[in-house]
Amino acid sequence: MSTSSPGSRNLPTLEEVAARAGVSRATASRVLRGATNVSEHARSAVLNAAEDISYAPNRAARALVTGRSDSVAFLVAETEDRLFSDPFFLGMLRGAQTVIAAAGLQLVFTVASTRDEHERFLHYAAGGHVDGVLVLSLHGRDQLPQELESHAVPTVLSGRPFSGGDELFFVDSDNVGGAAMATRYLIERGRRTIATITGPLDMCAGQDRLIGYRKALADAGRPDSAELVETGRFTIASGSSAMTALLRARPDIDAVFAASDLTAIGAMRAIEASGRRVLDDVAVVGFDDIGDAQLAHPALTTIRQPIGDMGRMMATRLLQRMAGEPAVARTVLPVELIQRATA
Amino acid sequence: MSTSSPGSRNLPTLEEVAARAGVSRATASRVLRGATNVSEHARSAVLNAAEDISYAPNRAARALVTGRSDSVAFLVAETEDRLFSDPFFLGMLRGAQTVIAAAGLQLVFTVASTRDEHERFLHYAAGGHVDGVLVLSLHGRDQLPQELESHAVPTVLSGRPFSGGDELFFVDSDNVGGAAMATRYLIERGRRTIATITGPLDMCAGQDRLIGYRKALADAGRPDSAELVETGRFTIASGSSAMTALLRARPDIDAVFAASDLTAIGAMRAIEASGRRVLDDVAVVGFDDIGDAQLAHPALTTIRQPIGDMGRMMATRLLQRMAGEPAVARTVLPVELIQRATA
Repeated sequence: MSTSSPGSRNLPTLEEVAARAGVSRATASRVLRGATNVSEHARSAVLNAAEDISYAPNRAARALVTGRSDSVAFLVAETEDRLFSDPFFLGMLRGAQTVIAAAGLQLVFTVASTRDEHERFLHYAAGGHVDGVLVLSLHGRDQLPQELESHAVPTVLSGRPFSGGDELFFVDSDNVGGAAMATRYLIERGRRTIATITGPLDMCAGQDRLIGYRKALADAGRPDSAELVETGRFTIASGSSAMTALLRARPDIDAVFAASDLTAIGAMRAIEASGRRVLDDVAVVGFDDIGDAQLAHPALTTIRQPIGDMGRMMATRLLQRMAGEPAVARTVLPVELIQRATA
Repeated sequence: MSTSSPGSRNLPTLEEVAARAGVSRATASRVLRGATNVSEHARSAVLNAAEDISYAPNRAARALVTGRSDSVAFLVAETEDRLFSDPFFLGMLRGAQTVIAAAGLQLVFTVASTRDEHERFLHYAAGGHVDGVLVLSLHGRDQLPQELESHAVPTVLSGRPFSGGDELFFVDSDNVGGAAMATRYLIERGRRTIATITGPLDMCAGQDRLIGYRKALADAGRPDSAELVETGRFTIASGSSAMTALLRARPDIDAVFAASDLTAIGAMRAIEASGRRVLDDVAVVGFDDIGDAQLAHPALTTIRQPIGDMGRMMATRLLQRMAGEPAVARTVLPVELIQRATA
C-alpha cells in the first residue's frame, strides 16, 4: 500500500525545496502554504521541487493529488474508560494493527461516544486526514458509517450495524449461533432454570445473543420467561447488578448465560455475594474469551470469538476497499465453546 | 481554537461544488483530486466553489493555507499492551482529552515503540495531519520530539526528556522529591534495610526516582548498597521478579520503595510468595497512585502524582504553543504521600 518510509533523518527540508526550485525559503514557504501572490513560474518550480524530493509538509498537497493520507483510524464509539477497561478492544486493535502496519500505514485510534465527538471525527476524517475507518461498538441507528461513506471515506464495522446492514461492510462473529451453543450446553448439563444477562439491546450483538438464547430454549421445548432476562451493558458492574436482580426475582436460577465475559465476571461476584457457589449452585457461561476468562476464579466457561482474527479481517477488508479492490461486504466468523470451570 | 463544527448533515457535497462551479460532478471530482487534464478555467471555478462553501474533502487544501488539521495526537512510545495495561496512560489521556475537546479539536492516540513506527508517525505528523503532539514515555535519547519540532509540529512531553531538556517543552512531576519523600518516610517508620526497584533507567523518571532514594539515604547517614537496587520496567511482572531477586540477595530487607504502583503490586506478590508478610515483614511504598493502589490488598501506600492535572497541563501548554502564545517550557508539579496499609 504505497509510501516507503524514508529514514527520518533524511526527510527533505524546506531549504532543500527552495534551493532546488531556485527561490528563497520564504517564497517556497508561501507557495507551500497556498499563497497566491507568487508568480506562476515560482509556484510550479516549488511544487515540482517538493514533489521531486517528497517534501513531507507537502503531504497535504499530495493528498489532494492521491487522495491519501496513508493512515487509518480505529474508532470506538464508547468512552475512553470503556475502551481501556474491556480487553476485547485491545484484542481487536492488536489484530488490526498487525495488518495496517504491514501495509506501511499509520493507525490512529480514537473514541467518540457523544454526538459532538461524532461530528468532530466526521469532519476530521472527511477532511482527508485518514483514508479509511474501522468502526467498533456502534450503538442504535447511529449514521456515522453512512456519513463517512458519503464523504468517500470507506468504513468497515465490527459487528452488523443496527441499520444499514445491507449497504455497509462489516465483520461479525456468529452471535446467534454462539448464544444458542452456550444455552444448549447448559441444558445438556441438566440445568433447569437458565437465565441470561444480555448486552446492550441497541446493538445487534446484544439482540442476536438474546435471540440465540431464546432459540435454544425453544428448540428444547422450554418456556421462555421475562423474569429470566436482564439487560446488561457488557461491563462487570452491569453483570453484577443484573445477576443480583435475577436471583432476587427467581431464587431457583441454576444457570446464567452472560452475553460477555466481563458481564459473566460481574455475575459470578453477585452469585458469591448472595451466598451461592458458582457451578455447584449456578453455572455461568460467558461470551468473548478475553484473557480474564481464563484467569477468573473459577476459570470461566465461555464462547470464544476469534477477536484477533476479527481485527485482522476488518483491516484486510478496509485495505481492499481503499485500494479499490473487490471486498466481501459481510463476513461472519465462527465461534466455539471453551469449557472451563464455571459450567 | 478555530473551526466551528457544523451539523454533519449540513456538510457541503461534491454535487454542490459542481453546481456552484457550473461543471459536471466528474469534472469537480477530477479537479479536487488534482487531475491536470482539466481547463484552468474549470479548475479555478471548482477550487473557488469548494473554498466558498468549505467543502470538506478540500480540507487538505485548506490545511495548505491555514496549516491546521484541527487535531492533536497523543503518542505513547510503548507497545499497545503497555498503553492498555498501565492506568497511568488512561489518566493522562482523560486529562488531556478534556482540554483538547473543550478547544473543539480532535484527539487521536497512537503508539510507537519501534524505529519504524516512529518514522511512520513522523511522516504522518509532518504531513500536516495533526497540529501538535503530546509525547508520553519517551525512552533514551529518542529524537522524535526534536524531529517533530524541526518539521514545525509543536510537541509537549510528559516527563523531562533524557536529552534535549533545555529546548523541549515538558510537564513533569517532582520525581526526585517524591522518591526522597517515600524513602524518608520508610526511615522514619524505623525500617533498616530499604531496597528500591527502579523504573527504566533510560527514562528521567527512572533515574530521578533513584536519585531521590539515594538522596534520602545519604541525608540520613545511611550507606547505599548496590545489592539493594534492582531495575524494573514500571510493570507488575518486572516488580515481581526484581523483588524476588532482592530478597534472595538480601533476606534482611524490611522495606522497598518501588518506582511505580504496578511495580509495587508485583513486589507485594513476590513478598507474599517468599512467605513474608507485606508491612509486618516488608513495608512497600509505590509511586503514581493509580486506582489499583487503593484496590490492592493490602491497600498500597504511595506517592501520588497529579496524573489528571499533568494531562490537562500538557494539553494546555500544547494549545498555547499551537496558538503561538507564550508557554512555560518546563512545568514540574508537586507530589504527595498517600498513607495506606503497606507502610
